[in-house]
Amino acid sequence: MNILEDLNGSADLKKLKISQLSALAVDLRSQILSVTRKNGGHLSSNLGMVETTIALHYCFDLPKDKIVFDVGHQCYAHKLLSDRKQSFESLRSWGGISGFPDIEESEYDAFSTGHAGTSISAALGLCYARDTLGQDHTVIAVVGDGSLSNGLNLEALNASNQKPNNFIVILNDNGMSISKNKNGFYKLISKSTTKRGYVKGKRAVKRIFGNSFVTRFLIRCKDFLKRVFNKNNYFEKLGFKYVGVIDGNNVKELTNILSRVKNIAKEKAVLLHVRTTKGKGYDKAEENSSTYHGVSKNFEQTTSGFGLTLGQTLSAEMDKDERIVAITAGMKDGTGLFQVEKTHPDRFYDVGIAEEYAVTLAAGMAKGGLKPVVGIYSTFTQRAYDQIVHDVCLQNLPVVLCLDRAGLNGEDGKTHQGLFDISYLSHLPNLTVFAPADDNDLAETIKYALSLNSPVAIRYPKKGEGRFATQEFGTGEWERLTEGKDVTVLAVGPRMIKLALNLNQACENKLSVVCVKRVNPLDQKFLDGLVGTVITLEENAIKGGFGQAVKCYLADKNQKAKVFGFGIKDEFIPHGSVEEQLAYCGLTVDNIKKIVFNS
Amino acid sequence: MNILEDLNGSADLKKLKISQLSALAVDLRSQILSVTRKNGGHLSSNLGMVETTIALHYCFDLPKDKIVFDVGHQCYAHKLLSDRKQSFESLRSWGGISGFPDIEESEYDAFSTGHAGTSISAALGLCYARDTLGQDHTVIAVVGDGSLSNGLNLEALNASNQKPNNFIVILNDNGMSISKNKNGFYKLISKSTTKRGYVKGKRAVKRIFGNSFVTRFLIRCKDFLKRVFNKNNYFEKLGFKYVGVIDGNNVKELTNILSRVKNIAKEKAVLLHVRTTKGKGYDKAEENSSTYHGVSKNFEQTTSGFGLTLGQTLSAEMDKDERIVAITAGMKDGTGLFQVEKTHPDRFYDVGIAEEYAVTLAAGMAKGGLKPVVGIYSTFTQRAYDQIVHDVCLQNLPVVLCLDRAGLNGEDGKTHQGLFDISYLSHLPNLTVFAPADDNDLAETIKYALSLNSPVAIRYPKKGEGRFATQEFGTGEWERLTEGKDVTVLAVGPRMIKLALNLNQACENKLSVVCVKRVNPLDQKFLDGLVGTVITLEENAIKGGFGQAVKCYLADKNQKAKVFGFGIKDEFIPHGSVEEQLAYCGLTVDNIKKIVFNS
Repeated sequence: MNILEDLNGSADLKKLKISQLSALAVDLRSQILSVTRKNGGHLSSNLGMVETTIALHYCFDLPKDKIVFDVGHQCYAHKLLSDRKQSFESLRSWGGISGFPDIEESEYDAFSTGHAGTSISAALGLCYARDTLGQDHTVIAVVGDGSLSNGLNLEALNASNQKPNNFIVILNDNGMSISKNKNGFYKLISKSTTKRGYVKGKRAVKRIFGNSFVTRFLIRCKDFLKRVFNKNNYFEKLGFKYVGVIDGNNVKELTNILSRVKNIAKEKAVLLHVRTTKGKGYDKAEENSSTYHGVSKNFEQTTSGFGLTLGQTLSAEMDKDERIVAITAGMKDGTGLFQVEKTHPDRFYDVGIAEEYAVTLAAGMAKGGLKPVVGIYSTFTQRAYDQIVHDVCLQNLPVVLCLDRAGLNGEDGKTHQGLFDISYLSHLPNLTVFAPADDNDLAETIKYALSLNSPVAIRYPKKGEGRFATQEFGTGEWERLTEGKDVTVLAVGPRMIKLALNLNQACENKLSVVCVKRVNPLDQKFLDGLVGTVITLEENAIKGGFGQAVKCYLADKNQKAKVFGFGIKDEFIPHGSVEEQLAYCGLTVDNIKKIVFNS
Repeated sequence: MNILEDLNGSADLKKLKISQLSALAVDLRSQILSVTRKNGGHLSSNLGMVETTIALHYCFDLPKDKIVFDVGHQCYAHKLLSDRKQSFESLRSWGGISGFPDIEESEYDAFSTGHAGTSISAALGLCYARDTLGQDHTVIAVVGDGSLSNGLNLEALNASNQKPNNFIVILNDNGMSISKNKNGFYKLISKSTTKRGYVKGKRAVKRIFGNSFVTRFLIRCKDFLKRVFNKNNYFEKLGFKYVGVIDGNNVKELTNILSRVKNIAKEKAVLLHVRTTKGKGYDKAEENSSTYHGVSKNFEQTTSGFGLTLGQTLSAEMDKDERIVAITAGMKDGTGLFQVEKTHPDRFYDVGIAEEYAVTLAAGMAKGGLKPVVGIYSTFTQRAYDQIVHDVCLQNLPVVLCLDRAGLNGEDGKTHQGLFDISYLSHLPNLTVFAPADDNDLAETIKYALSLNSPVAIRYPKKGEGRFATQEFGTGEWERLTEGKDVTVLAVGPRMIKLALNLNQACENKLSVVCVKRVNPLDQKFLDGLVGTVITLEENAIKGGFGQAVKCYLADKNQKAKVFGFGIKDEFIPHGSVEEQLAYCGLTVDNIKKIVFNS
């Protein structure tokens, strides 16, 4: 690790010879692999982008020039090369650096990202700001082919064919568009043809200069010229000069092209199409980039979790009912729906990173007589809020939304927390919201949801904490797990149930711990008559959450109850272990005891 | 009105001769004009689509075949031709028929719409459902060029290049893509070229048949053939057979083409590109389709409202601060931002119907040092929920969101109500939410918002109810309008303040009426120490709304207050006058008196 060790920031990097950059790439990969193995993180995408990132830092003037990374799960090399080499070991740990670009962390991070599709809009915003304020720098959006087809990016691409100068979009084509052969958008963006002018010019050069040194020199420029003379109607109509396709893992070629692209961009925005290999440099990840997309510590593969339950339950139900279909938005592995793809490929739809389409498609299917189940992470379902309101709930259609990764999500941090879903779903008419207690409960919830003829949302974290609920499911009535007096703990979701049981133990088993299976509507029968001290526990914003709904219900009924609502404080919660995040939000036995019992 | 009068449903329509259809179009226009003049509604779009709708009903078998109207503001002829001729006079009135397609209203309405961009996703859902269930009918999405470029439609177009058979998208090109010359997407979709095969074939025919009757016959088919042999790379790469461009106001040509397109679609999905004139048949609307887009009763032009205040205030502030920019998503007239376009064209951005892009663009601009003000209707801002969370609030960027048409919106009904914004905004960290009391208060709020260095949302209805607030704005502290004892009424927004004042009058001026300027965070100083009876009034869902926040705050503080929360019940509120809607939700003096005072 000689070269990386000696580097201190972009200025040092620029002093390197181009021939040294490949060695630097080796060092960066080694560091990324080692820290990701230790801390977990995004592997495939980061390994794939090493050379392109080096070339960007080498050819541009950071942080004056701005890079917006779409999704942001490819920023490790960028962090190492800018100002976070020393702190890189703290990646994704509490108080350490984030796994995503974060404007609070460094001025080298031009825009915080985490969700797909924001880069071109944000970069255009930075360009317009620059031009309005009379500044002079280049803005670069780095976006994968999988994210480029997200509606937000498409809106930004289409809005104007007058793109600002000194604006470069780097399309990182790494084959993540789901099933390229069938993806319409991929056809649009991948077709490039060499302009006739290039071919004519080549002939003319040979005719005039014969086999002289001029020809030989020009042939050396061939690759570059050819790429610059390539055209792609899609991007050119949208106001870009198209340059591509470039090997995004060849740092020498990249620095050559990028320095020229920088100049071209002074006259016209450029779309630079590079092709990279996900997982580059780590065999296992190259072979199976999907498995090594997001990895746990020591690259351990998790084989359990609610996703497995979803997949298994759904497959079994689909055997029985031909109307059930499954939809995911580029997350078949994470949501467990890959299992349905295996058992029922004809009723499985992976629409790519297009959450809005996923939900309105489901609404259309439901109107047409099907029973669609949509599996998306809680944080990404935010993208489809209007589709849930306007297409699903307004028409009261039987769509089942499965929100995986609800609650705290540990090391991924702020952008990936699922801490608002109860708040953004519970006020919607017609929608029933469930929060299963355990795997068995999730299975029962799914079966019940499929029997309802109205919209359902089911929110659950990645994995459970063991079996809690044993009563018959019914309609999701709340279940009393321990019999206590005076104090009732209403707990939403596995970790909160576990916390409630621990609290009960710490309070000499005097509490009544209740597993809240259905978040909305509330279990009114249970609440009616409830008095004394009530504690609500949820991994959701306190504002607009379950606890507030309970508090208001009891107040409206004039019941003599004192409700203590515990949940997520009014902040974006940073990365770290879930335990650290829970402690930060006061979701611990000690804190609850202190606040409720003054002990 | 002979022909329309005698018609009873699609079956009758099919018995007409094609030559009679033009006369029917005249009848339909006359009826649409007369009822819209009486009831208000969408004029330009409905007038433009008369012939296309006749042709659709003539050539297809409704309701077996399904039409999904994007936005749905072009469905009047469809309602008249299907099963709502008798009830058409009740258009947009309480208990009458809706101004938008509504699945609860008729089986001829295949999907309820109101927001732009949903048609292709929903229609694909209907196709997949049909194919899964082994049914046999055609699904048609009717979409304007302005809506087609919305991210949701684009996601649906791009998701697969294998479009289902018996699927037709009718692109209604009526020139509503904002500034066509500058719109990138419009370039993509408008370019069609005649395939070489057609030209060759034409020559061959002449060579073989000379000037015989065969040639003459074939020449008669010319127009059709030419259009079928047209191609458009954009749509063809996305899996459509492209047919166009057709005169969408020529009913004879349309029936001819549509009956053929129906057959072509059996083998491959078709995109039929028609060109229509907005406002067709009513001179004033043809000349100024934008003014006659949505009209009030008697086509009166409203010249006041909060929009004017927004535009004027912003123009004045922009004179003083070059960092302020204004953004709208295809709603410059409705939001009043057209005024800014006039005064500061270089700092005005109309991005078309692309709310997601509008908000993330604003976030980028704010990060780049500008102060963007985004004007969108409350209901459409739902589309940008994730962008508000993830791009604006998470980075704590100074973006000012102006949510016009917040609260009840009368005759537009369910899809256009702004009844969730307090619920979907109040739980977001870093976001301050204001609800101005009157025009002057809005102006003060805007100025204050621009001075803050963090995200702000301002929600207000179309127009005010007179001047209420007179205290200095400060930071939006709540203002006591009347001095009462025991009973405090916290009222959010102009109509609720007016209601509170009326209630006070009905209660012998004993109430303390408070104008709630800032919804979130609450005015804690005001609330601290508040006891007795508290009434909250808001035009927002009770769930997750302002009243619940107040209730929880007071309960947490153990204050001896009994809070009565009035707001919108847990339903989607249908069309009618705002007064009828308020009464339906119990937001009347009588109901409040009854519930709070038992009198």
